[in-house]
Amino acid sequence: MTKGRMEAFSDGMFAVIITIMVLEMKTPRGTGLAALQPLLPVFFSYVLSFVYVGIYWNNHHHMLNAAERVSGGILWANLHLLFWLSLFPFATGWMGENHLSATPTAAYGFVLLMAAIAYWILQQTIIARHGRDSLLARAVGGDWKGKLSPVLYLASIPLAYVSVWIAAGIYIFVALLWLVPDRRIERVLENKRH
Amino acid sequence: MTKGRMEAFSDGMFAVIITIMVLEMKTPRGTGLAALQPLLPVFFSYVLSFVYVGIYWNNHHHMLNAAERVSGGILWANLHLLFWLSLFPFATGWMGENHLSATPTAAYGFVLLMAAIAYWILQQTIIARHGRDSLLARAVGGDWKGKLSPVLYLASIPLAYVSVWIAAGIYIFVALLWLVPDRRIERVLENKRH
Amino acid sequence: MTKGRMEAFSDGMFAVIITIMVLEMKTPRGTGLAALQPLLPVFFSYVLSFVYVGIYWNNHHHMLNAAERVSGGILWANLHLLFWLSLFPFATGWMGENHLSATPTAAYGFVLLMAAIAYWILQQTIIARHGRDSLLARAVGGDWKGKLSPVLYLASIPLAYVSVWIAAGIYIFVALLWLVPDRRIERVLENKRH
Amino acid sequence: MTKGRMEAFSDGMFAVIITIMVLEMKTPRGTGLAALQPLLPVFFSYVLSFVYVGIYWNNHHHMLNAAERVSGGILWANLHLLFWLSLFPFATGWMGENHLSATPTAAYGFVLLMAAIAYWILQQTIIARHGRDSLLARAVGGDWKGKLSPVLYLASIPLAYVSVWIAAGIYIFVALLWLVPDRRIERVLENKRH
Repeated sequence: MTKGRMEAFSDGMFAVIITIMVLEMKTPRGTGLAALQPLLPVFFSYVLSFVYVGIYWNNHHHMLNAAERVSGGILWANLHLLFWLSLFPFATGWMGENHLSATPTAAYGFVLLMAAIAYWILQQTIIARHGRDSLLARAVGGDWKGKLSPVLYLASIPLAYVSVWIAAGIYIFVALLWLVPDRRIERVLENKRH
Repeated sequence: MTKGRMEAFSDGMFAVIITIMVLEMKTPRGTGLAALQPLLPVFFSYVLSFVYVGIYWNNHHHMLNAAERVSGGILWANLHLLFWLSLFPFATGWMGENHLSATPTAAYGFVLLMAAIAYWILQQTIIARHGRDSLLARAVGGDWKGKLSPVLYLASIPLAYVSVWIAAGIYIFVALLWLVPDRRIERVLENKRH
Repeated sequence: MTKGRMEAFSDGMFAVIITIMVLEMKTPRGTGLAALQPLLPVFFSYVLSFVYVGIYWNNHHHMLNAAERVSGGILWANLHLLFWLSLFPFATGWMGENHLSATPTAAYGFVLLMAAIAYWILQQTIIARHGRDSLLARAVGGDWKGKLSPVLYLASIPLAYVSVWIAAGIYIFVALLWLVPDRRIERVLENKRH
Repeated sequence: MTKGRMEAFSDGMFAVIITIMVLEMKTPRGTGLAALQPLLPVFFSYVLSFVYVGIYWNNHHHMLNAAERVSGGILWANLHLLFWLSLFPFATGWMGENHLSATPTAAYGFVLLMAAIAYWILQQTIIARHGRDSLLARAVGGDWKGKLSPVLYLASIPLAYVSVWIAAGIYIFVALLWLVPDRRIERVLENKRH
């Protein structure tokens, strides 16, 4: 019951976050195709953030599927993750409207970094509650993606001042890395059923 | 469980998309009935988009009702559909505020086209997972509406530059076509129960 | 299953509608209590609309509780109701920002009227599906509130041009009328259980 | 069933309230770190309100978990609580944008006070429905936090005119007080299971 309501609330927040980001894409003044051109970086930021929130929803969904119990600590670790995800619309808008200037692009990397850390904390809190031998603990295993991503986000912050294209390249690269669904958890769950 | 959460998240996004579209209808300055007149094209766009999102929700609901399993690929095909639907508020606002000028009206048709393609991809992904002989595959059958709609949307893009009324007429015609609920799936499901 | 998803989608839209109305209450420029004074009519409109959406949610909830089946027609009658409810933020903002001028106040009454008619259509569609002898049909019974409300809303439209206070008084009166929860349905349901 | 839908609607509203607050944090004009500086008080207000809505969601969740039945009175007491919570985005924006001036800071305290009173009313309504000997009544017990908080909020209103830092200090202190999850209810529920 408790897990169900935490999922329902998270789904609601994921849905609102992913949708209000589109409000950052203000209706252009002109009526020609040229009027859309200045929107291109905003659109790029929107697509990138949409994919990231989608990845988080997907992984969140898989992780909670493997979880069996929820505690007060897990509820707050979850809210902590949702807090950083709720800054996506702001970070997306700032980066997009300024055509990927250095500081807004670095700030976007910072929000990605904090969300990744928050996700890791949530994962650890859930594992701690379920035990080191639990299904989830084994499923996550080495978790090289979860360890590599924050390192890359951290690197992107100074690199944005060298060239925003390096930072943007990192964001796209990490997104593609995660776009492959977390088969580890799926596989372990599958094995459990047989 | 997995299907349930994908439905919950989709319902959340459908609900937010359909409702924030109304924010494009800005409160008019004046207090007379005349103040509402410039809002008429915005209102028309809103009604049209409301009906379209309603149709997608309805069909989405019927299709997932017939589905039994969900995979990583289906989750992403679903997010892909929701991405194009999330552009409805933007496309609706641009078309409405510019009193149906050519390019914004064509852009609206483009978003309709991409959403139709995304829906088709989602349908194919679900069918692939359930098998050619599955309930859903048989229910969809010929699917002439699903094949005709993208062709009409595609045609509406150049036609908007001939006359926006032709494009708008196509959008209304296709909406009316779909407004009839998808009795095919309902019928096959009904037969299954007996 | 079907009924559950229709409720989930409706709950999502109710939640978004009731919450984005607050966005019409723009943050005031000043920092003194005087800065809040011009917001008073906006606040009054917000409270009124919050209560109305709350009443609709409450009655919707009771009505669907008594319903057992859902059809394509019911889904669309439900979307039709949600359409008129989705215009509440607009109507609320227009009436509030113009300090209850005649036309915006009459327009608010028009939206209330259309929502009441849409609710009646939904109720009739559900009853038609369940049969004249169904639990719901008996529970609704005379339904004098459902018949009186649209008449009063209709009257409020011309009366707003006589005095907005008469119209506002009608809106408050009808809201109070409905604030009493629909004990008829509750009672019949209760009887059924015993 | 009834309780489930009340929770779903509440979760929807909690999710929308907590997320649209971020819209008060307008994208800054500049592109340097300096552009973020005037946003600091807005960010502080956002974090504070996020934590408060999180606390309310958490406690709401625990309380309803212990509840077994829902009545018309409980539905309205719940809507009353959600009404005051829906004013959080407004109060947060006004306090943040004015860099914690006296009146906006006092107004924030007033909204906190009203929400606390509304929560208390909801709790009493649920207890009245379940009986003085119910699980919930025993779980709440002395409820010193629930009694202390409104007193502190009430005190913060005049104290904001002495120094906004005292008021802000009170808001942070009470938030920390509640951040500790309501173990009382958890403990009684746990005992019940054994």
